[in-house]
Amino acid sequence: MTTRWSRAQSEAARQGLDALLITPGADLRYLTGYDAKPLERLTCLVVPSEGDPFLVVPALERAAAEASGVEIALETFGETEDPFQLVASLLPSATSVGLDNHMWAERVFAWHDVLPETAFTTAGTVIRELRLRKDAAELEALREAGETIDRVHARVHEWLRPGRTEREVGADIARAIVEEGHETVDFVIVGSGPNSASPHHELSDRVIEEGDPVVVDLGGTTHAGYCSDSTRTYLAGGTPDPQYAEAYTVLLAAQTAQRAHARPGVTAESVDAVGRQILADAGYGDLFIHRTGHGIGMETHEEPYIVEGNELVLEEGMAFSIEPGFYVSGVHGARIEDIAVCTADGLAVLNDRPRELVVL
Amino acid sequence: MTTRWSRAQSEAARQGLDALLITPGADLRYLTGYDAKPLERLTCLVVPSEGDPFLVVPALERAAAEASGVEIALETFGETEDPFQLVASLLPSATSVGLDNHMWAERVFAWHDVLPETAFTTAGTVIRELRLRKDAAELEALREAGETIDRVHARVHEWLRPGRTEREVGADIARAIVEEGHETVDFVIVGSGPNSASPHHELSDRVIEEGDPVVVDLGGTTHAGYCSDSTRTYLAGGTPDPQYAEAYTVLLAAQTAQRAHARPGVTAESVDAVGRQILADAGYGDLFIHRTGHGIGMETHEEPYIVEGNELVLEEGMAFSIEPGFYVSGVHGARIEDIAVCTADGLAVLNDRPRELVVL
Repeated sequence: MTTRWSRAQSEAARQGLDALLITPGADLRYLTGYDAKPLERLTCLVVPSEGDPFLVVPALERAAAEASGVEIALETFGETEDPFQLVASLLPSATSVGLDNHMWAERVFAWHDVLPETAFTTAGTVIRELRLRKDAAELEALREAGETIDRVHARVHEWLRPGRTEREVGADIARAIVEEGHETVDFVIVGSGPNSASPHHELSDRVIEEGDPVVVDLGGTTHAGYCSDSTRTYLAGGTPDPQYAEAYTVLLAAQTAQRAHARPGVTAESVDAVGRQILADAGYGDLFIHRTGHGIGMETHEEPYIVEGNELVLEEGMAFSIEPGFYVSGVHGARIEDIAVCTADGLAVLNDRPRELVVL
Repeated sequence: MTTRWSRAQSEAARQGLDALLITPGADLRYLTGYDAKPLERLTCLVVPSEGDPFLVVPALERAAAEASGVEIALETFGETEDPFQLVASLLPSATSVGLDNHMWAERVFAWHDVLPETAFTTAGTVIRELRLRKDAAELEALREAGETIDRVHARVHEWLRPGRTEREVGADIARAIVEEGHETVDFVIVGSGPNSASPHHELSDRVIEEGDPVVVDLGGTTHAGYCSDSTRTYLAGGTPDPQYAEAYTVLLAAQTAQRAHARPGVTAESVDAVGRQILADAGYGDLFIHRTGHGIGMETHEEPYIVEGNELVLEEGMAFSIEPGFYVSGVHGARIEDIAVCTADGLAVLNDRPRELVVL
């Protein structure tokens, strides 16, 4: 963690920030290992650009913080003390401070109150530089997450069949996500028939019918705090509608081309464009209604976003989803999603379940 | 929901706010019924103090928002459009805007950028006035949550015994929280032996020993979105240490007195003081290291806080925990927690498992 702190400190200094204030969430866990709950009492990592970082915690959470193994000085406050004043007293000369991008608004206002002369901005530009490039241990953690969710997809046939509701199937899948090794279930999408056309559909009481396409998009977090996210599209028995099958073939070609294209040195938006062009050339351009993907790590969605307009050049260590889809509102849809990571050799794909339409 | 909107609108107007901006979380669910995920694409309820509220959602989440049953106009934006500019264009004359207390900092900064002439504050002072006083349906939802977690406590004896680790016991309890009817497990604290002295301990690999006191603090959320939270202290067989038993008797007297005292018309801090005095009189004042309680509803911790300095006069419909404890660092601790709600008749307590030290 000390390496991460010193990198955060140099990057903060480079950006002209005197300190970073980081509240519970992925950034705090990344920098300290402490998976603190986001509660109403302030927990806040203070990273001055010079000097030692310290963690402000409620007195009654000192033991929990220590038990989490954080190797950092703790400053505590009692139930009727003001932690914002405490931090302000420890940062008297900070003129420019970066706040955790996900810090609560009420806290942003509280800092303004206790440090009225200080200019605030987001800490994200600093932390992003670190979290964007995964180190070897992080890549191993993402690989484990990918293998875990693949084992769940390998079992979907046990539960997904006509006559059952999406919710019933989803409950079985959620149990398996934990059984196979995730600590938490982050989301379970079972979009059957017309619901497959809603990219962010979750679960409903719709009864799955023979021949339905079913988009199954699953994610969980491992004990190490890294996320999985993989989508496969199934057919609940029967044979696919010919038009649907044709579109699916194009989708698979698009996703395959994107996997072949993505690597260090190409831009994020070019990965999106490669797939979008293939779908557009076949007349399905308007049906691919979302970006190609999102970064993944300690959050399911983080940078880099694989989207038009993102000119970021991909580098070794960047991990992201490749998940094109097509959606005909009220009729049907499909999506194929893998997590991939840029390596010295090109691209390592962390999911390897069959990508063809899986007829159950 | 329309009643809630109009109450929010009049309260916003009364406080001089032209609009409220509410992002995913409890406030959004309270005002719309939509349990939107907190993701990187902006979802935002706009409540102008005059005119109709509307919900800004990403185009690809339109179907999910509609499926959630929201009865509100939707404004959507595409993958490469700027939703902050969209909202700004719809609020051209807003001079004072309240932001969701839990809105992400990066969004607070984004509103400042697109509405540079607007003054921002928290929306909490408005929403708090609504959420603080639960209506009949909410009280029924909290009652159901309380009965559900009571059924889990009634089964703790099935799993908690010497020789098992806290983590093993916790996993069994977590499963039961869902089996008994909660939608999600919010937290499972099994603090055994010396870990019982850490109020926010969760689970560890410590093996429970014969005669250990074990603090078991459990909470989940029901399908309706309301939270449970109840603590009982168990003894893992054997007989209690006499000093511990004596302190526990005082703790129970304190919690009983607090339940007898709390009702509409008394202040929040007086409920805290009543219990604290009893513990202090018996020489345990320094061991009660946290406030007495927190409000509960669609969040586990919300207003009103039962703490010294909170002069709020309790009113019918206010729901909160009563959870005094004592903690001897590194040795042992105990806590007794019930959820209670102020009613026309006094106080209704929503948990009713035995409060004595439960010897297993």
